[in-house]
Amino acid sequence: MTTTEYDPNVVLSTKEYDVIGTRPLRPDGADKVTGRAQYGADFTATGLLHGKVLRSPHAHARIRSIDTSKAEAAPGVLAVVTNADLPKGGEDVVGGEGVAVGDLRRNVLAADKALYKGHAVAAVAAASPHDAEEALSLIEVDYEVLSPVLTVQEAMADGAPILHEDMRTMAGGEAGDEPSNVAEHFRHDLGDVEKGFAESDIVIEREFDTATVHQGYIEPQVATALWNTDGRVHVWCSTQGSFWVRDEVSNVLGIPESLIKVTPMEIGGGFGGKIPSYVEPVCAMLSQKTGQPVKIVMTRQEVFEGTGPTPGSNVRVKVGADAQGNIKAAHAYLAYEAGAFKGSPVAAGSQCVFAAYAAPNQAIDGYDVVVNKPKTQAYRAPGATNAAFAMETVVSEIAEKLGIDPVDIRLKNAAREGTRRADGPTFPRIGCEEVLQAMRDHPHYSAPLEGPNRGRGISIGYWFNVGFKSTCTISVNHDGAVSLIEGSTDIGGSRASVAMQAAEVLGIRAEDVRPTVADTDSVGYTDVTGGSRVAYATGWAAHDAAQDVKRQMIERASQIWDIDAASIEMEKGVIRSTTDSELRMTFKELAAELASTGGTIIGSGSIDGGGMGAGGGSFAGNIVDVEVDPDTGKVTVLRFTCVQDAGKAIHPSYVEGQMQGGSVQGIGWGLNEEYFMRGNGEMANSSLLDYRMPTSLDLPMIDTVIVEVPSPSHPFGVRGVGEANIVPPPAAIAHAIHNATGVWMEKLPMNPGAVMEAVWSK
Amino acid sequence: MTTTEYDPNVVLSTKEYDVIGTRPLRPDGADKVTGRAQYGADFTATGLLHGKVLRSPHAHARIRSIDTSKAEAAPGVLAVVTNADLPKGGEDVVGGEGVAVGDLRRNVLAADKALYKGHAVAAVAAASPHDAEEALSLIEVDYEVLSPVLTVQEAMADGAPILHEDMRTMAGGEAGDEPSNVAEHFRHDLGDVEKGFAESDIVIEREFDTATVHQGYIEPQVATALWNTDGRVHVWCSTQGSFWVRDEVSNVLGIPESLIKVTPMEIGGGFGGKIPSYVEPVCAMLSQKTGQPVKIVMTRQEVFEGTGPTPGSNVRVKVGADAQGNIKAAHAYLAYEAGAFKGSPVAAGSQCVFAAYAAPNQAIDGYDVVVNKPKTQAYRAPGATNAAFAMETVVSEIAEKLGIDPVDIRLKNAAREGTRRADGPTFPRIGCEEVLQAMRDHPHYSAPLEGPNRGRGISIGYWFNVGFKSTCTISVNHDGAVSLIEGSTDIGGSRASVAMQAAEVLGIRAEDVRPTVADTDSVGYTDVTGGSRVAYATGWAAHDAAQDVKRQMIERASQIWDIDAASIEMEKGVIRSTTDSELRMTFKELAAELASTGGTIIGSGSIDGGGMGAGGGSFAGNIVDVEVDPDTGKVTVLRFTCVQDAGKAIHPSYVEGQMQGGSVQGIGWGLNEEYFMRGNGEMANSSLLDYRMPTSLDLPMIDTVIVEVPSPSHPFGVRGVGEANIVPPPAAIAHAIHNATGVWMEKLPMNPGAVMEAVWSK
Repeated sequence: MTTTEYDPNVVLSTKEYDVIGTRPLRPDGADKVTGRAQYGADFTATGLLHGKVLRSPHAHARIRSIDTSKAEAAPGVLAVVTNADLPKGGEDVVGGEGVAVGDLRRNVLAADKALYKGHAVAAVAAASPHDAEEALSLIEVDYEVLSPVLTVQEAMADGAPILHEDMRTMAGGEAGDEPSNVAEHFRHDLGDVEKGFAESDIVIEREFDTATVHQGYIEPQVATALWNTDGRVHVWCSTQGSFWVRDEVSNVLGIPESLIKVTPMEIGGGFGGKIPSYVEPVCAMLSQKTGQPVKIVMTRQEVFEGTGPTPGSNVRVKVGADAQGNIKAAHAYLAYEAGAFKGSPVAAGSQCVFAAYAAPNQAIDGYDVVVNKPKTQAYRAPGATNAAFAMETVVSEIAEKLGIDPVDIRLKNAAREGTRRADGPTFPRIGCEEVLQAMRDHPHYSAPLEGPNRGRGISIGYWFNVGFKSTCTISVNHDGAVSLIEGSTDIGGSRASVAMQAAEVLGIRAEDVRPTVADTDSVGYTDVTGGSRVAYATGWAAHDAAQDVKRQMIERASQIWDIDAASIEMEKGVIRSTTDSELRMTFKELAAELASTGGTIIGSGSIDGGGMGAGGGSFAGNIVDVEVDPDTGKVTVLRFTCVQDAGKAIHPSYVEGQMQGGSVQGIGWGLNEEYFMRGNGEMANSSLLDYRMPTSLDLPMIDTVIVEVPSPSHPFGVRGVGEANIVPPPAAIAHAIHNATGVWMEKLPMNPGAVMEAVWSK
Repeated sequence: MTTTEYDPNVVLSTKEYDVIGTRPLRPDGADKVTGRAQYGADFTATGLLHGKVLRSPHAHARIRSIDTSKAEAAPGVLAVVTNADLPKGGEDVVGGEGVAVGDLRRNVLAADKALYKGHAVAAVAAASPHDAEEALSLIEVDYEVLSPVLTVQEAMADGAPILHEDMRTMAGGEAGDEPSNVAEHFRHDLGDVEKGFAESDIVIEREFDTATVHQGYIEPQVATALWNTDGRVHVWCSTQGSFWVRDEVSNVLGIPESLIKVTPMEIGGGFGGKIPSYVEPVCAMLSQKTGQPVKIVMTRQEVFEGTGPTPGSNVRVKVGADAQGNIKAAHAYLAYEAGAFKGSPVAAGSQCVFAAYAAPNQAIDGYDVVVNKPKTQAYRAPGATNAAFAMETVVSEIAEKLGIDPVDIRLKNAAREGTRRADGPTFPRIGCEEVLQAMRDHPHYSAPLEGPNRGRGISIGYWFNVGFKSTCTISVNHDGAVSLIEGSTDIGGSRASVAMQAAEVLGIRAEDVRPTVADTDSVGYTDVTGGSRVAYATGWAAHDAAQDVKRQMIERASQIWDIDAASIEMEKGVIRSTTDSELRMTFKELAAELASTGGTIIGSGSIDGGGMGAGGGSFAGNIVDVEVDPDTGKVTVLRFTCVQDAGKAIHPSYVEGQMQGGSVQGIGWGLNEEYFMRGNGEMANSSLLDYRMPTSLDLPMIDTVIVEVPSPSHPFGVRGVGEANIVPPPAAIAHAIHNATGVWMEKLPMNPGAVMEAVWSK
């Protein structure tokens, strides 16, 4: 039996467990470090063809015609597909992911218009990748080039070029009359914001801009599809959610979902960007035409230009407070880039912008704006980082102006159980205050910071976490180990965290639970690995499946001992009679008896873990020290501490890994990363050499503190930890830059040029 | 909804179903006919090494020493293994398959002795198959060649060379003093056989010999194994039972079963011969030494010489009857070749030899005899065909001598419900009489047979069928199709027959159940595909899993309608309130609601279907017309009818396929097939050119009649149909040859030479 060691990196630990909270080796570790794990690009099949995608060279253009005849006749080419090969319509049908099927189809292969540079226009399947690439140049597309709009400000300007002639701003359910690039405008209100500002002793209003950034996963998108002669389609791909790929392929191709089998290969990072499908339906179309399996592997440039980054945004925040620092009113205006089709994460951003604060009067205006960039997608706490950069900077400025400690002002206004958000919900038990207290109590916060051009900053951030649906099946082996089948692709160690929850219930070692991530035909419906939901919801399903096994183990013992099941208990892996101390078996001993007493035991669990905010969500806070080079504006991160409420950390190492990973991504977003766009809509830095993400050489060790305020809705109190950690870093760094230089940064990234400009303009 | 059509090939159909009894396309059809299905030889992995096995050139030899040093130094060679690399002992440990672990180990790699020509002695892993093969010739084995024994008569003779110095005949639990090649002698008694013979008006005693024959599956044995750095072993192989491979690899290597994952690839035939493991543990050992995956593909010669055929035998049957044809007494002596290690199917043969007859006085002596041939293995109704050839020939001879119709004499003595067998059990409801009646009523039986040298014969045969353990999991998709996960490798269409039983319970189309055969980590313990058990036991598990789904669907409807679940019924795919006719949903409609009412439904079933004779077993009978060439002795089969009790035919086409396949194998066994052994123990015909199995050009259409006498123990009455059909053909052909030529054949195969010899000796 594994036992819980004292863990100095976990504070407020809430309950003792045998397996949960320990740090066993991950089940997929050996495969991954020895190169045995099978990723999408490793997959091959007899008769495999290679696909390549022709992409629009223009950010905005009408497609007058596409002539594929020369390409079809080219050597080695077996098929060419365009949007004309897809079913028509679907504009009014919204798929499981909340995206209109018509938009999905037009994003997978452009129809009448190319809406961003890199927009897929046609695809070729050929005997070799070279034949396919060669044939792309033989496809003749007649474009009418149009002016692009590249930012929300440009898109919302009067007389702006229009992406979709049929798009009317939706506001309060009402469509406007004129074509617009604003897909939606919504507003949340709480209390009376004008009254609140009037009551305030200080009101600060600032405007912020953030750049489009990419998730930067290492493994490019890759898929292989085989459309079999019996009408069934098998897809092997790199995805965060095999069942969502199944849904999208079903929607895009117009065939029933259960004719589609998706085998999720190992995944080399996703961060939200591998939720949607790009090449999967295209591979299937090419396979249908050729009768052979077709594989497409994206290049890095295609990943940047042809998949969904997370939006740039224009955010205005106005906050009023009394002289004691009590926030009286807050108003936010958030305009987010949707990219080429409606659906930015502005809704989530608007729900997170004030989530850390119990402000009595709030108003939030959100704008979802289409621009000539790739359709934006989720990226770790989607929408929240943009919003927190604005709100946290304003709160820190107020604290400074009022002479209040920046952690104290947040504690004074912190959201807690019962706090109502402007968008409606009331918080259950949450850990906002506990995170702030842990920040205040951390040695980093009180450590001296000496030397010129140095500053310390802090901030806090929130992400909902989602529940959604998961299933799990567990079967008991004769040797007492159990096999666990789940549908959640494992990006960050979730095989371990799911298996450990089953082990805890069964009272066996984590190593004796063998998790398998199965294909869509071999496990019940399971939503994406995203929204910090896997340890939460799939772990819960594993808990329930293990409880089901436990119940059946007790029944079996009842049969063997010929006593009432009600008088048998199973705890810490021992089954015993509560009335006869002679009757006692270990899990392992009973497992060995199963074969001769009726056969194997299989338990199953199926969970609907709820939607956004399931379990109350998670808060994360940062303390960061920086040094700003006064000559170049380069910001060096000297020390960085991330504090986060995990609810309950199932496997602390992987929680810390998530916290460190999210922090590094937040630092990159804050300091360096951006889609550097030319005026014609071309991305100038579409390689990992030019799109500069931080490396281990750029950063200090990211210190982590896990706070544990158990979620009230999860059997072990899990909250999910994948996302909130990316939210605070840009604002914390901006705060630290201010303390080093005296200037408040209002633009991301805060790269050397931007910092020098800000310093100079002061 | 599929509906049952009238099916002229099924008689005594017992119950109407919607799906069961129809003939949908098999789910794996498209994959198999288009070459997409992945067989063991198709499997590849990064860094794959190729293994080859060095085999003994002697049928019996002491191994004085093995020097592998030159092979280890050869180009491309990465590892060499011998029995010395295996754990020691295990002679007293009997694994799940009833074979001592010590014997398993010594069969996988010979220890102190090579016991048959082809016995594996060492194995090499190298960068290419050619390097590996080249290295085999560099392994120096010092053999002391011993005299082999090749038949049970030789092995049981006084002064015979002894295979195992420590083997003593076990009889009634008592071991003898002297070394012996008889591993076991047992006897079953019923009534007083001497008294029975004394009361008989006619007593016939005959002696029969049958040759060693091979299952003749098209796909040779193949396996790949990867012993990972975390101690886990993954095996991909062609097997009838992934969990049995897991057990055997665990036993042979001495590691826990749950550290082993077996992925069963598609299988190109098995017929019992792909139950045991040969190359799987060897691949694992080579992988452990090299750290890379290692694959071994057998050649056809290796399949013949290095895997288990079914035994040759020496059988004596003595039957006494009164003048009216009532059998008064029967005695059988059965001596079967075990091959190199104990464990022939003589036990099963002895239980089948009189199974079709309600003879009041019986005695059966069985001898399990080791010889210098490969360890024998199961082959379709193992042991029963040898026995039936003897018994059926004697019964036909008595019928002829008494002037009674051969079907009538069998009907007069037919086993029925309540008949007790000499080995103990009493039959439940069985279909022996119904099969005989269907034979008598068949147009073939009364059709004129004109022309010289022609004869008609009949016979009947029995096979137990087994239950054993199976599990099944079913999850419901949003579109109303369901995914079914099973652990039974699909050899003869069992994906279809298992899926159809689930479809019947759920009231949905067979096509809407998508079966997947999962690996051992992804499904609960499931026994081999063998013993005619899959449609029976895995089908039963599917039935139970579907019932579990049904229960949960009703619960969900109860929740949606807010009424008591007890007032809801689900039939023929419609869920309805029994009290309110407005409340009604189809399975599909409710499936679409699951996502929003609590998530996916998963049902599971786990069955222990019992052991030998589960469900009463199955009887099959043949009517055959032959023409014997008087100059060459060649026997041509002119017409062949197979009648079999299926209990209930789930998918009649695949039942007919089993009946035809078994008949053809029985014909081959009867007329042509044999291990043609040289005196030194070398097989002279170890290729499919020389080992002559019948082809479609050799045979007429095999007519089939399915009789349905439902099994009392299965929810749909299934009996299992894979095996009984191979039992009667040799005896039926011998009977037909007698009627054409006047001679009774007493030896298999009845090839032209044997027939001419019999004619001449008459």
